[in-house]
Amino acid sequence: MLGNFTYENPTRLHFGENSLGFLKEELGHYGETVMVSYGGGSIKRTGLYDQVVAILKAAGKTVVEDGGVMPNPTVEKLYEGCRLAREHNVDLILAVGGGSVCDYAKGVAASTWLDGDPWETYYLNYKDPDPGLRILPVGCILTMVGTGSEMNGGSVITNHSQNLKIGKVFDSRLMPKFTILNPKLTFTVPQYQMVAGFFDIMSHLMEQYFSNEDDNTSDYLNEGLMRSLIHSSRIAVKNPQDYEARSNIMWTATWALNTLVGKGKSQDWMVHMIGQAIGAVTDATHGMTLAAVSIPYYKYIMHSGLHKFVRFAKNVWDINTDGKTDEQAAMEGIDALDAWMDEIGVAKKASDVGVTPDNIEKVADATILGGGFMQLTRDDVVEILKRAL
Amino acid sequence: MLGNFTYENPTRLHFGENSLGFLKEELGHYGETVMVSYGGGSIKRTGLYDQVVAILKAAGKTVVEDGGVMPNPTVEKLYEGCRLAREHNVDLILAVGGGSVCDYAKGVAASTWLDGDPWETYYLNYKDPDPGLRILPVGCILTMVGTGSEMNGGSVITNHSQNLKIGKVFDSRLMPKFTILNPKLTFTVPQYQMVAGFFDIMSHLMEQYFSNEDDNTSDYLNEGLMRSLIHSSRIAVKNPQDYEARSNIMWTATWALNTLVGKGKSQDWMVHMIGQAIGAVTDATHGMTLAAVSIPYYKYIMHSGLHKFVRFAKNVWDINTDGKTDEQAAMEGIDALDAWMDEIGVAKKASDVGVTPDNIEKVADATILGGGFMQLTRDDVVEILKRAL
Repeated sequence: MLGNFTYENPTRLHFGENSLGFLKEELGHYGETVMVSYGGGSIKRTGLYDQVVAILKAAGKTVVEDGGVMPNPTVEKLYEGCRLAREHNVDLILAVGGGSVCDYAKGVAASTWLDGDPWETYYLNYKDPDPGLRILPVGCILTMVGTGSEMNGGSVITNHSQNLKIGKVFDSRLMPKFTILNPKLTFTVPQYQMVAGFFDIMSHLMEQYFSNEDDNTSDYLNEGLMRSLIHSSRIAVKNPQDYEARSNIMWTATWALNTLVGKGKSQDWMVHMIGQAIGAVTDATHGMTLAAVSIPYYKYIMHSGLHKFVRFAKNVWDINTDGKTDEQAAMEGIDALDAWMDEIGVAKKASDVGVTPDNIEKVADATILGGGFMQLTRDDVVEILKRAL
Repeated sequence: MLGNFTYENPTRLHFGENSLGFLKEELGHYGETVMVSYGGGSIKRTGLYDQVVAILKAAGKTVVEDGGVMPNPTVEKLYEGCRLAREHNVDLILAVGGGSVCDYAKGVAASTWLDGDPWETYYLNYKDPDPGLRILPVGCILTMVGTGSEMNGGSVITNHSQNLKIGKVFDSRLMPKFTILNPKLTFTVPQYQMVAGFFDIMSHLMEQYFSNEDDNTSDYLNEGLMRSLIHSSRIAVKNPQDYEARSNIMWTATWALNTLVGKGKSQDWMVHMIGQAIGAVTDATHGMTLAAVSIPYYKYIMHSGLHKFVRFAKNVWDINTDGKTDEQAAMEGIDALDAWMDEIGVAKKASDVGVTPDNIEKVADATILGGGFMQLTRDDVVEILKRAL
């Protein structure tokens, strides 16, 4: 059955090639001082930064510059952003970049006026902001697809000194107030990052799919998104400038992790827990850390949720299961996933993302344990990592 | 390609058997006077009315009683509701019932403080409320599934003197602020109304699906919802008390018409236009008017969108299309729809919903023309109605 839940998602999304045109209207809802958070400067090279600042200036805003958000945003950068936002008494945080920048902006939004340490409060202890706390509004202009951060409360922060990369999911107060989704802004992302994003989407869908045996609407929606992603990703890897494929992938990414397809059911998330642990230790690209462990992970848990893997083979990969045992059918589904990963060109071995026999124990230590069909122990994680090498 | 659009849906949904428990918390956001709008009194028989009023009283609210909303809400009832809401200076409209009651509540919410005639302004001329207009907030407690009115801006009102039944889609200001979805509240709906609701859901999905040949995420999501509905409806018609089936259908209905699966693509809606015209003339149950014309309609337009009908056969009904012509495959999809309609037991002839050779012209006059794959003329509508008899 579909379990009990509350669904709420107030983010307003402007989608399309002209969507930056909505920024001016959105700015009208906020005060004078806007902090523009961004990454390593690619938005300066593409001209997007100048475009955005011109719109801000024309709207009479004071711009607070906050560049240098790294792909795995650190707790030190989070503290720095909070200091900046407090000093300038910022009215709006405008995140211009990929999921990392959005994730970071939400962390700053929740922490700027927090009386206490944000790392400890939100990330280590998973607390939610007090009802009375002043939370800064966040807007996003997305330039890279994958994380879904543009329409959810997620915020992943890395603490290198503690070897931890933790994802906090804030409630709807921290969801972006508005997001601008222009598929063309994603055309300049390098192929490696693009396909890592594609796998991140697929992983979000599989994490929510591979748990719970009931026949519910969430899984049907999930299958639709997986089918759309598989179809369009095959086109996009051959021609990254294909607007149709890139626009559909961008929209799929948003719905893959804005809470919808996980509603009313249990979820897994162990691929993300292991992948994030790898990221904390090696600083590798997020989507690639997920790709590197997925096949060994799903083969490891397959027998604990066999019927769902058979359904995956049939409904996602159109595999004819007639006359096959459940094991055979399930394995054909995983093989189809494996072949698609080769097609789009993602990491297939943990060694591709910096895991070595020497740091496996460190990665296992950094892995937050849990699971869906199967509850993983630390030993299971070590075994999966060994098989992934 | 996925076209340009803005997506925004602020409705907060509380789903599950205990969801009425959230009403108290929601009431805290609004002033003292709550107008409770409901239909013919079934909520009094089931005890729901007493439960709701007890929660309202315990929260210190003044209750304004507004019963008697009919299945096809009339413009006269709309005027009456507005008078009542003005007289009592209502702070919140709480719609308790099916889609008709929600539709009506939105009409009242937009019209209570309107300086002008709502029928003319909103329904005949499709205008939106002025930015400065005071719009009353609406909350819904849903007791019947199908229309999707619980999470959209739709409001269908009937004007018998003009023979018109018109659906206005308001912007996000008129979407319910909150909706309570308890599948158990739908258990007492008579079988005829229940299956009419099931077909209404399917029709919403098909109206958005059968248009536009591109391969987009919206259609993949749509196929997921259709598959879920087909699966669960087969269980629910045999055992209406099956919570799993009813809960999934309730959730599917919400997402079938909250704008998501129509984003970025063209849509059709001619089955609704003809069905609403029948409703205006005969006052028949909405879902049954749609069912009565669907098969003749889709056979009529099939050749104008053949590839989409082939895709429908494959992806929705799992029909093996190998070695078949597109015509054969497409027709097998429509035949599968036809067989499912027999299974769940909906109207199959226009004569079942009051259409006769004598009133066909009147229905055609009341039909708002348009279309998706094919733009319909008045003659086309007459021909489809004749074939549906």
